[in-house]
Amino acid sequence: MPPLYFIPGPSQLAPTLSAHLEEALRKGVASVSHRSKAFEDIYKNTTEKLRILLGIPTEYHIWFLSSSTEIWERLCRNCIDKGSFHLVNGSFSRRFSEYPAEIGLPSASVSVPDGNGFSLSGIHIPADTDFVAVTVCETSTGVWTDPNEIQKLKSRAPNIRIVADVVSAVPQCQLDIASCHAVYFSVQKGFGLPAGLGVLIAHPDAVANSEKLRSSGRLTGPHHSFSALAKYSAIHQTPSTPNVLFIYLLGEIASDMLKIGLDRIRKEGLEKAATIARAIEDSSFLEFFVAESGFRSPTVTVANVEEGSEKLLKYLVDGGFVVGNGYGSHKGKHIRIANFPAHSVENVAALCHAIRKFK
Amino acid sequence: MPPLYFIPGPSQLAPTLSAHLEEALRKGVASVSHRSKAFEDIYKNTTEKLRILLGIPTEYHIWFLSSSTEIWERLCRNCIDKGSFHLVNGSFSRRFSEYPAEIGLPSASVSVPDGNGFSLSGIHIPADTDFVAVTVCETSTGVWTDPNEIQKLKSRAPNIRIVADVVSAVPQCQLDIASCHAVYFSVQKGFGLPAGLGVLIAHPDAVANSEKLRSSGRLTGPHHSFSALAKYSAIHQTPSTPNVLFIYLLGEIASDMLKIGLDRIRKEGLEKAATIARAIEDSSFLEFFVAESGFRSPTVTVANVEEGSEKLLKYLVDGGFVVGNGYGSHKGKHIRIANFPAHSVENVAALCHAIRKFK
Repeated sequence: MPPLYFIPGPSQLAPTLSAHLEEALRKGVASVSHRSKAFEDIYKNTTEKLRILLGIPTEYHIWFLSSSTEIWERLCRNCIDKGSFHLVNGSFSRRFSEYPAEIGLPSASVSVPDGNGFSLSGIHIPADTDFVAVTVCETSTGVWTDPNEIQKLKSRAPNIRIVADVVSAVPQCQLDIASCHAVYFSVQKGFGLPAGLGVLIAHPDAVANSEKLRSSGRLTGPHHSFSALAKYSAIHQTPSTPNVLFIYLLGEIASDMLKIGLDRIRKEGLEKAATIARAIEDSSFLEFFVAESGFRSPTVTVANVEEGSEKLLKYLVDGGFVVGNGYGSHKGKHIRIANFPAHSVENVAALCHAIRKFK
Repeated sequence: MPPLYFIPGPSQLAPTLSAHLEEALRKGVASVSHRSKAFEDIYKNTTEKLRILLGIPTEYHIWFLSSSTEIWERLCRNCIDKGSFHLVNGSFSRRFSEYPAEIGLPSASVSVPDGNGFSLSGIHIPADTDFVAVTVCETSTGVWTDPNEIQKLKSRAPNIRIVADVVSAVPQCQLDIASCHAVYFSVQKGFGLPAGLGVLIAHPDAVANSEKLRSSGRLTGPHHSFSALAKYSAIHQTPSTPNVLFIYLLGEIASDMLKIGLDRIRKEGLEKAATIARAIEDSSFLEFFVAESGFRSPTVTVANVEEGSEKLLKYLVDGGFVVGNGYGSHKGKHIRIANFPAHSVENVAALCHAIRKFK
């Protein structure tokens, strides 16, 4: 039997993925031209399903790029005018915070030590900022930023462009997209697809802002500029040859989720998170890395392992469970357990049972 | 029965693709971490197979990006110092020639009317040029540039960085990669994969050149910079989460090709091209768009259709053959027929038989 993947992305594939893939090959999805009506129908279906599933306002753009790290660069080049401000609470938010300077754009950040979180109500946004980067689930540390607070942040600073990383948080997180200038994720986490597709949801004003930056000479280069993305998405196409197959699969997985119901998926997500939390609480060798429970992500749980994580990870692999190692400097110290819709209640119970049996 | 796809990419999938995909899912390829040994092994296998298959010198880098249009932007930003010079003979080479100016880089070009080709021996490279862009098969017009001439061009201008587009030409074309600074292609053409992966082969000096451009402030931005790509490819990884599944599949298809033998694949490719050519010559309603036979691509054949292409394309679809329409302003006038390794001798014969029966 193949192992169960609990690494926080790429991760376990959605249980229906293999059947959708077979159907896609049968229908010739991977052979159709990306300038054909057949592709436009795929694009339309996927964006429509995502719009319903995630409550994306009609006027927001939905664009397909190659990864969230590509999206970081596009966001910096197309959205930062005065300066960006980053809330840094782990490796991924930290890496994003370095992008503007590497592009030559003004930026600032506020950091908390790894394992700590942010309450957005306490955040002071510096002057000369028009872009604030928030990470709902920081995949490296398992820290959660309450998405409900984004709305309040927006009310406090209505002219700020809030950019929300929901990479490992979607579709578990309930986010008011209308409060954001941009929201982005990759499909290999909560959607249970193979890696190779990033999704960028952008405020309708994002295109005009981007065009202003181009006029001023700050934005250069044609590839995946917001203008190009908008020009083509208006006709349900993409500026360059996209990953047609994965766009199709994303639409199918979103359809499956609509059928099951997102409320049920989220409820089950919280129940599975509680199962994982109990296994950690009951353990003599595991300790939550995120001390404050309100900052713990329901989708990625990170625990410190007494005497290091190597032995436990190997034990779990031998039992058929591939769990994530600690990220960056936490490698060999932590385990990271993903809890996405592709992980069934039974899968999570089996993993926790194995953890309880360790030693 | 599903139709046969003769569009010039995305196109017909390799006949073994579906079995490789099944095996990949069985082995968990789409779930492994891109920072794991399992992924490094996939990366190593694919680059090793490509190196043998295409004669890529050991010291050249092989990098995976998302598309050839992404590669255009990376090449401009990372390789153009003094200025670029583009040989334009169709829509794709024309689009690439517009990139430098849109990034704010000096560039020049020489054009021939669509359907005409270039003899590289006649090309005068202007002063203040350090980058020359050549397209071996221009997918929009079916024009071929003899890859043997690239070597001679290099001897004439040893300090020029020759960048060769082999998007629709590989693996049919026999190219001396050592004469080039960079060579690139996408996997949905000659390798018979779904779209969503671009491959960039780069001279070892490309990284130092790119770093010089960064020091001078000309190159900005971290995403897929040559330094980042080189840093990670040295450890058989990628800077951002890649399309692991397609990198794996590319390695499997390259293995298949090595088993069959590239000589045989190329010989068969020329034979199939001759079959297509005869169908056009014998037809009363088709005419080669590329008048001079030496400039006709063996991989993409473009023909003018008397009274327009619409009726013929519909007739072919009804018969189970999806053939490409004319590109850009040639839409409705041309047909474009791809001839990749995934198109069997029998498939090509069946298509040509159908063409002969039209009217």
